[in-house]
Amino acid sequence: MSRYVKKRSKKAGLPPGTLVYIGDRKPDGVKITILDYNEADFHEMDAGTVEACFPFRDTLSVTWLDVDGTHDIETIRKLGECYGLHPLVQEDILNTDQRPKLEDYGDYLYIVLKMLSHDERSGEIRSEQVSLILGRSFVISFQEGKEGDVFGPIRDRIRSGKGRIRKTGADFLAYSLIDAVVDSYFVIMEKLGESVDILEERLVDRPSPETLHGIHALKKEMIFLRKSVWPLREVIGALERGDSGLIQEPTRAYLRDVYDHTIQVIETIETFRDMVTGMLDIYLSSLSNRLNEVMKVLTIIATLFMPLTFLAGVYGMNFRRMPELEWPWGYPAVLGIMCTVAISMLAYFKKKKWF
Amino acid sequence: MSRYVKKRSKKAGLPPGTLVYIGDRKPDGVKITILDYNEADFHEMDAGTVEACFPFRDTLSVTWLDVDGTHDIETIRKLGECYGLHPLVQEDILNTDQRPKLEDYGDYLYIVLKMLSHDERSGEIRSEQVSLILGRSFVISFQEGKEGDVFGPIRDRIRSGKGRIRKTGADFLAYSLIDAVVDSYFVIMEKLGESVDILEERLVDRPSPETLHGIHALKKEMIFLRKSVWPLREVIGALERGDSGLIQEPTRAYLRDVYDHTIQVIETIETFRDMVTGMLDIYLSSLSNRLNEVMKVLTIIATLFMPLTFLAGVYGMNFRRMPELEWPWGYPAVLGIMCTVAISMLAYFKKKKWF
Amino acid sequence: MSRYVKKRSKKAGLPPGTLVYIGDRKPDGVKITILDYNEADFHEMDAGTVEACFPFRDTLSVTWLDVDGTHDIETIRKLGECYGLHPLVQEDILNTDQRPKLEDYGDYLYIVLKMLSHDERSGEIRSEQVSLILGRSFVISFQEGKEGDVFGPIRDRIRSGKGRIRKTGADFLAYSLIDAVVDSYFVIMEKLGESVDILEERLVDRPSPETLHGIHALKKEMIFLRKSVWPLREVIGALERGDSGLIQEPTRAYLRDVYDHTIQVIETIETFRDMVTGMLDIYLSSLSNRLNEVMKVLTIIATLFMPLTFLAGVYGMNFRRMPELEWPWGYPAVLGIMCTVAISMLAYFKKKKWF
Amino acid sequence: MSRYVKKRSKKAGLPPGTLVYIGDRKPDGVKITILDYNEADFHEMDAGTVEACFPFRDTLSVTWLDVDGTHDIETIRKLGECYGLHPLVQEDILNTDQRPKLEDYGDYLYIVLKMLSHDERSGEIRSEQVSLILGRSFVISFQEGKEGDVFGPIRDRIRSGKGRIRKTGADFLAYSLIDAVVDSYFVIMEKLGESVDILEERLVDRPSPETLHGIHALKKEMIFLRKSVWPLREVIGALERGDSGLIQEPTRAYLRDVYDHTIQVIETIETFRDMVTGMLDIYLSSLSNRLNEVMKVLTIIATLFMPLTFLAGVYGMNFRRMPELEWPWGYPAVLGIMCTVAISMLAYFKKKKWF
Amino acid sequence: MSRYVKKRSKKAGLPPGTLVYIGDRKPDGVKITILDYNEADFHEMDAGTVEACFPFRDTLSVTWLDVDGTHDIETIRKLGECYGLHPLVQEDILNTDQRPKLEDYGDYLYIVLKMLSHDERSGEIRSEQVSLILGRSFVISFQEGKEGDVFGPIRDRIRSGKGRIRKTGADFLAYSLIDAVVDSYFVIMEKLGESVDILEERLVDRPSPETLHGIHALKKEMIFLRKSVWPLREVIGALERGDSGLIQEPTRAYLRDVYDHTIQVIETIETFRDMVTGMLDIYLSSLSNRLNEVMKVLTIIATLFMPLTFLAGVYGMNFRRMPELEWPWGYPAVLGIMCTVAISMLAYFKKKKWF
Repeated sequence: MSRYVKKRSKKAGLPPGTLVYIGDRKPDGVKITILDYNEADFHEMDAGTVEACFPFRDTLSVTWLDVDGTHDIETIRKLGECYGLHPLVQEDILNTDQRPKLEDYGDYLYIVLKMLSHDERSGEIRSEQVSLILGRSFVISFQEGKEGDVFGPIRDRIRSGKGRIRKTGADFLAYSLIDAVVDSYFVIMEKLGESVDILEERLVDRPSPETLHGIHALKKEMIFLRKSVWPLREVIGALERGDSGLIQEPTRAYLRDVYDHTIQVIETIETFRDMVTGMLDIYLSSLSNRLNEVMKVLTIIATLFMPLTFLAGVYGMNFRRMPELEWPWGYPAVLGIMCTVAISMLAYFKKKKWF
Repeated sequence: MSRYVKKRSKKAGLPPGTLVYIGDRKPDGVKITILDYNEADFHEMDAGTVEACFPFRDTLSVTWLDVDGTHDIETIRKLGECYGLHPLVQEDILNTDQRPKLEDYGDYLYIVLKMLSHDERSGEIRSEQVSLILGRSFVISFQEGKEGDVFGPIRDRIRSGKGRIRKTGADFLAYSLIDAVVDSYFVIMEKLGESVDILEERLVDRPSPETLHGIHALKKEMIFLRKSVWPLREVIGALERGDSGLIQEPTRAYLRDVYDHTIQVIETIETFRDMVTGMLDIYLSSLSNRLNEVMKVLTIIATLFMPLTFLAGVYGMNFRRMPELEWPWGYPAVLGIMCTVAISMLAYFKKKKWF
Repeated sequence: MSRYVKKRSKKAGLPPGTLVYIGDRKPDGVKITILDYNEADFHEMDAGTVEACFPFRDTLSVTWLDVDGTHDIETIRKLGECYGLHPLVQEDILNTDQRPKLEDYGDYLYIVLKMLSHDERSGEIRSEQVSLILGRSFVISFQEGKEGDVFGPIRDRIRSGKGRIRKTGADFLAYSLIDAVVDSYFVIMEKLGESVDILEERLVDRPSPETLHGIHALKKEMIFLRKSVWPLREVIGALERGDSGLIQEPTRAYLRDVYDHTIQVIETIETFRDMVTGMLDIYLSSLSNRLNEVMKVLTIIATLFMPLTFLAGVYGMNFRRMPELEWPWGYPAVLGIMCTVAISMLAYFKKKKWF
Repeated sequence: MSRYVKKRSKKAGLPPGTLVYIGDRKPDGVKITILDYNEADFHEMDAGTVEACFPFRDTLSVTWLDVDGTHDIETIRKLGECYGLHPLVQEDILNTDQRPKLEDYGDYLYIVLKMLSHDERSGEIRSEQVSLILGRSFVISFQEGKEGDVFGPIRDRIRSGKGRIRKTGADFLAYSLIDAVVDSYFVIMEKLGESVDILEERLVDRPSPETLHGIHALKKEMIFLRKSVWPLREVIGALERGDSGLIQEPTRAYLRDVYDHTIQVIETIETFRDMVTGMLDIYLSSLSNRLNEVMKVLTIIATLFMPLTFLAGVYGMNFRRMPELEWPWGYPAVLGIMCTVAISMLAYFKKKKWF
Repeated sequence: MSRYVKKRSKKAGLPPGTLVYIGDRKPDGVKITILDYNEADFHEMDAGTVEACFPFRDTLSVTWLDVDGTHDIETIRKLGECYGLHPLVQEDILNTDQRPKLEDYGDYLYIVLKMLSHDERSGEIRSEQVSLILGRSFVISFQEGKEGDVFGPIRDRIRSGKGRIRKTGADFLAYSLIDAVVDSYFVIMEKLGESVDILEERLVDRPSPETLHGIHALKKEMIFLRKSVWPLREVIGALERGDSGLIQEPTRAYLRDVYDHTIQVIETIETFRDMVTGMLDIYLSSLSNRLNEVMKVLTIIATLFMPLTFLAGVYGMNFRRMPELEWPWGYPAVLGIMCTVAISMLAYFKKKKWF
């Protein structure tokens, strides 16, 4: 459940803008990486302290501050003050249960995304909140500090100077980060697709209560996914169509492209939901089918042996005067009758297509 | 049911604006607390009579009148007259079955909220209506007079002068009250999340009719919750985007924040609904599964013993001429045949994976 | 079904504006009551003939013509001609299967409402169409002529001159009539709420096919209610926001109040629908539960006695050489074996938690 | 299925505007009836050839060309050319699987309707496409040429000169035709209502697989109906609110009336759908109920006789030393025990309310 | 599953506009066909190399470049550069998992469609992406290079000069291509309709688990179809209503026609979905019905023979003193009692309508 409701209650009653970290694990330290570049130059450094980031606020070159770890309240506060972030933005960066959203504060845009990854061990989808601050000439990205991210290829592209990224502004960098996050959803989709395939195959072969729990688990994953991806559509749509001066015209075409990808992801999720619902129907009717089959076996057995046992019982009675018992051919005759009854019943079942 | 339909019928036929209290319990007395403050000064007092509140109407400092108990019609009427409240507003304050709403009367805004709390004994969610009147320099809050509220921390913040609250106007106070109400929903969400978790666990371990009633009860709580929370979204959205002069620009950013929280609460409720629906499916198919299992046991037993009993019956017949009965090895032979039949049937069931 | 489809087919092919009465019962006579009032004066009279109503068309005081019975085509036609009603309006007054609607004919508004009442005998909800014509200084209300209406308190208020009604215009009178109709819905809601409560209790205690039919009947009532109430929301919304000069500004606040009530009624219906749907699920799974229980009893009995009967059958065989039969302790030994088998089976079922 | 998908594939690959008739049956000949009228004069004639229609294009009086049979491509083409119909309109007149729609070509409006009739023999609803061309002073109606139509009363009204129709223009004639089509839907609704009633009664009395197929057939009829009626709402709404100069102001009030009727039809269909869905639920749970009942009978019988048979079996064993067999009161005692067991079991079932 | 999720993950991390082919099979070569025509002239040729297409960019006559095969990245890149296609468009042409969409790049429109065909062998619907570039005087169409397309008749019409196509511009050509694609959907619809018919017939005759899997497969086809067709509605609607200068006025009427066809396809899919859902209900209740029938047989057999076997057992007991056994008419009397019991039970079942 902790994936669906975080311990927001810690915060109840505190004044707005109070910085409280509500995530569950506190990694060791906050790591800030600075990438500063323009078409000609490129600098990369680890900021030992948060103060090292301050001089980059007013440079003309594009600066990307990547803050990995949001548990250190002091760091966020100092950075927020230097870059003029609203107290509510600082609060939201720490609250890692935000839904994806876009807020326009005039000087900068505040974007919340969910970076998803597939946990191989538990088979669950893990989510990490990424907050982006897009200013005139800088982008600050806040990650929760979990292992790994999806921004490696972007760093490489900046370092190597390939593609458009070094020739364009901070808005293109922000687009690239969003694009990387959305692209990673396709990997999740493929994993989900495989799970759906496996479940479907198992459903046809040998449905079992485990299949049912598999379907249930898959459904829960999709509820979780939808919650992370649906609002994104609105966010990117607002970025593309919005009138913020921070987004330049050529970048909008690229945003439209990410928008299309988001819709594709959403449609795929909906397709999966439809299919999983269909699988539940199949599971339930395969249960009924099996019950039918078992019942038929029982009915055939009972219908076959009950009359025979009754016949045997009749000639097991101890009446003094039972003329059949004296007949020399009585026993074989009864055996013959029994065979006839059994065979005609089997023929009846055959006609009824019971086996 | 009383949570869903209140005794509105008492009112049928009365002229509009007639004040009738429709709540079910009448607490002892109405308690009015006055908090009057600006950045420098702060006064707090218990108003013995309603008349003690009148002088605060025209002060320049921010005044918060907290009326605890709406059963005393006369108090509401007098206060309403002094502060110029429309008769319909007075009526709505008494009708504690309002849905959350916002009404703009020009000079003041009328806001209805639902304060929710989790009743530990019955496990149900209890609701208390909070009516807010936001004027130029005052906020009047009406509570139903049930035990406890969620405004304690706000009082403390006003007393101590910490945070922004003393430096800002009545609109920020109103925002703070709304924020406190919405924050308290997260506590309810966590309680619900726990209930969902417990039910889900029990569903997997040992589904029983009690589980079903648990699911049903949970569903009813959610229907109740939705009714209280859904309209709030519209209310806060209208406050944020509205053009009422009573809301100042800096407060809108804070309202947008509460708006986000409301959406988060709504999405969580919807997520829970989806999960509870899924649990019902699981419950139903676990019933089918168990039926299947029971039927298999029955079928195995019947299939095993019916032919054997029949065989025993055959050799229990009293025909005079039954040559097998005379054979010295007749009895062991029949026992042998019986064993063979039983074993081959068990092998057949094994192959069919029936056990 | 007659509640859902009225005999419209009588009308197929007739030119539009042809007056045909499609209701099912024709009460004895049409009764027209005239109430004419302003702040100072008040007249009430029974109009013997329709012509008695004509002089009130042009008075400055507010006139309320309450026409009880719509089966007399001639009356409607004459009244319609005198007050300038469009032929289609006259037709719609007679067609008592209209859905609630608002039509603006410039000089007057035509409003259709459904007055609902709970029929104690059949337990069904009965509907009566109320058509309102709101002119500059008059309101004409047409009722189907069934027993009773909900306008008694309004008549009393006009007679006594209490409240705002005598001080205001025809629009406030129309509002009061609509308000009375909507208030009466709350009575229906309470009745429905009780039915839901009773059904729910019975569902938990002893579900039976009657419970199912109760649920079905309740569902049908709700489908019927929805059809009557849903369109009302739009009607009152249009009245409140509309730009008809016939509605004065102060009345709009009152209309907004009725609008809220309508939404409350709609939400309650939806809540009931959700609950009734949930009850159906419970009923179905309680059926499955009971089947499970019955099957378990059957399986326990069969599993217990089949092996024992088989054992008894074995020693009932008549083979000449069955050494066990000769043993002095054979009989008690077999009885002992039988007990052991029975007890170990019961232990097995106990372990499986079958009883 | 042919009602749902017509042989459109004949047309795949042909250039747009190619005239191909896709209906299934070709009636003998095309019959064109000309009605030309104004307030004073009236002419009615059968047009032998299509050329006979041409002179009426430019008369000032209102002309109604009723073309019965759309299989003769040449006729449509010539008429289309003379009256200036767009090739796509000519194509759509022939394609009798159009959904209801309205197209504004400036000089004329093109309206597609579905005329429904109830086929007594098959119990199915039959559909015939009616295309209307509304020009400045003419209306052309194209019917598929099936037997019968619903326009008889309109012809009579034109002939007799009663009502408004002879005093008004072509737009009122078009309205009258649409109104006649929509009015005929009410007849279908009543037939459907009767079917629902009959099915519901049978469901309560004696549900059988035939009931299920009845429900299924009804559902299919409704899917078919919805497809024909839903788009009509939009069509008439667009006619009423549209800004085409071909519709005069007084006619709009009449169109609003048809619009209301359409909504009434749609709501009735939705009500039926809800009820049929509810009937399916009832059917399914009545099946479960019956299964429960059958199972109870089986369980009672088995529980009653299995222990008794076992007892009889015990005393049928052939052990040499079975002291009970020697007792003089052994037999009556066993019979007594058997009775006691049977009676106490029946009492137990009675207590469990199994019968 | 591969139909639902393509291997997008190959692309994760690459800069936007990187050309990567994600389809699954690589046909041998790319084939480019050039058709250049105006009302008077017509040229058709196979372009050996991509460079052969360049001169046609600036001709005044209409040019249709049909590129069959999108796996050769270099060809797309060169063509894209010459005709000024945005890198994202080039990327999307290669990504064959696009959803249908329309993008307006000012100088040209980029349209994505899905060409569907029914694979006779697997019974599945196959999809091929068609990308159209509509410029001032040229149309470029990109197909995935699978066997066959639906554009043959258009080529023939251009060659022969019949119809409007040679007299009109590139926009009409683009319309014709879209129209051909949408027309081909009707063929798919007919195939689906046949499948629905067959399944429905089989459902009534002899429902089996195969029927269930057939329903499931059909449902999956429809989910797939919807994904391909739904967005098309928006695409063509935007084309028709859009303000792009590339679409001339007379073509809009034709686009409205295709728009209607798309809606017809969508409605047919929805109709099928409704019917398939109904079939699932029928299947499930036919299962229950059959279970009921089997259970009845079992119950009849058991109820008939259990009392008889019990009776036989009683008189098979070995008590020394059983007076009935000595009676001369004991045996016939017991046989008579047995017959009476059996006949009265059968009569009871007859009355209960169990067979």
